Amino acid sequence: MPSYALLVEYDGAAFYGWQRQAAGPSVQQALEEAASRLNGGVVPLATASGRTDSGVHAEGQVVLMTLSADLPPERLRAALDFHTRPHRIAIRAAALAREGWSPRFSALRRHYRYRILARRAKPALEEGRVWHVPLPVDHEAMHAAAQLLLGRHDFSAYRAASCQADSPLRTLDRLDVLRQGEEIHLLASARSFLHHQVRNFVGTLYEVGLGRQPIGWPREVLDGRDRQLAGQTAPPQGLCFLRVDFPEPIDWRA
Amino acid sequence: MPSYALLVEYDGAAFYGWQRQAAGPSVQQALEEAASRLNGGVVPLATASGRTDSGVHAEGQVVLMTLSADLPPERLRAALDFHTRPHRIAIRAAALAREGWSPRFSALRRHYRYRILARRAKPALEEGRVWHVPLPVDHEAMHAAAQLLLGRHDFSAYRAASCQADSPLRTLDRLDVLRQGEEIHLLASARSFLHHQVRNFVGTLYEVGLGRQPIGWPREVLDGRDRQLAGQTAPPQGLCFLRVDFPEPIDWRA
Repeated sequence: MPSYALLVEYDGAAFYGWQRQAAGPSVQQALEEAASRLNGGVVPLATASGRTDSGVHAEGQVVLMTLSADLPPERLRAALDFHTRPHRIAIRAAALAREGWSPRFSALRRHYRYRILARRAKPALEEGRVWHVPLPVDHEAMHAAAQLLLGRHDFSAYRAASCQADSPLRTLDRLDVLRQGEEIHLLASARSFLHHQVRNFVGTLYEVGLGRQPIGWPREVLDGRDRQLAGQTAPPQGLCFLRVDFPEPIDWRA
Repeated sequence: MPSYALLVEYDGAAFYGWQRQAAGPSVQQALEEAASRLNGGVVPLATASGRTDSGVHAEGQVVLMTLSADLPPERLRAALDFHTRPHRIAIRAAALAREGWSPRFSALRRHYRYRILARRAKPALEEGRVWHVPLPVDHEAMHAAAQLLLGRHDFSAYRAASCQADSPLRTLDRLDVLRQGEEIHLLASARSFLHHQVRNFVGTLYEVGLGRQPIGWPREVLDGRDRQLAGQTAPPQGLCFLRVDFPEPIDWRA
């Protein structure tokens, strides 16, 4: 039975996150149910590069599914994009996956973006896509503070209590903070992240952006290894899972 | 009684356009009703730089309202931004308007953007913000064709039958077509536009982008002055009213 890689975009507002939940609809469930239409009614298992939380968006989630049907990737993509209607899920591309390839374990680097709307007025066009902060935010101070977090560390201070990873050690490759008009964007890249790691970075750097804490504080929090010392977990709707790098490029077809 | 200029953002999906309609909620009605809370219950009249159609968005609509309350612009902005909840309308800034100033007649230039999502997969994150075209689009050919429409012309061929303007003469200052990843953006600037003019440009240039018509065709359509010769009216959700220029800068306060 052939295995397929899928490049998937979704609006997290409509879902209880990636993973199947009793509480309500998930991206995994919507994709698996759409794929069952091409799989003789049998619901296949979908695994993903990153298990995004409720409300978190994706532009380039990568998913693996094994199906009984032997379809050209272009046709599989079109059929799944059709059958996922009316969900806000798009199948941007598909590829044949090679034996042993895993969207989770083969991933070399994951890239996320977090958007803060830093203005007095509430969001109208970007409601549900940004964290609204009605105060002046010093993004340059946030960027300087973020650079002190780069490299390989025990990130226990930025890890959710619910995190299931075996180790709190991670290597943070990029954490840039930049301004785009009224928005502040945080761009984070690493081989993998702990649960809530990016949102905890944002909630902690935010204290520096407001001038409540000095530039060295997020690094002190890191070194303290205590989640109680860090800032709040920034809300999910500002976060978007942008893309994943793999050691061998995927032959995406649209 | 003081007059105020307002800088207004809205998500057009939730409204039957700018202007009050019997059919359903309009941006004008939502703004006027919010302002009545600051005006002793009297509903004031709001006038706008451009009367956007149902489904068309705005980042920088400019609105004039005269109120009995004499408020600093910062406080008026905050109060209106609050009272327009839960509508997807944001009051980005406010200013005192000088005697005789009109958001419609004083405007020197209006700027619009039209977004096409040119990919096979349906929109998920940008649903309701883009026109989805699941075909390859040659944006360079569209740009070349668009340059032949610049300048002062009788734009009857690009004018809606319902257009109420006295004259079909307009001066088109800018019509750029550029690619942004999977999207194609059309940027249009003029002192004023006819009804549906931008959406008719898009629907006509689109025929060039698909290779169905040559680069010179949209100009031939212009010279023919016959709406029947042009392409379709592109759908409203791709259009956004970006901003308005005035001869004297407005002292916006947020």
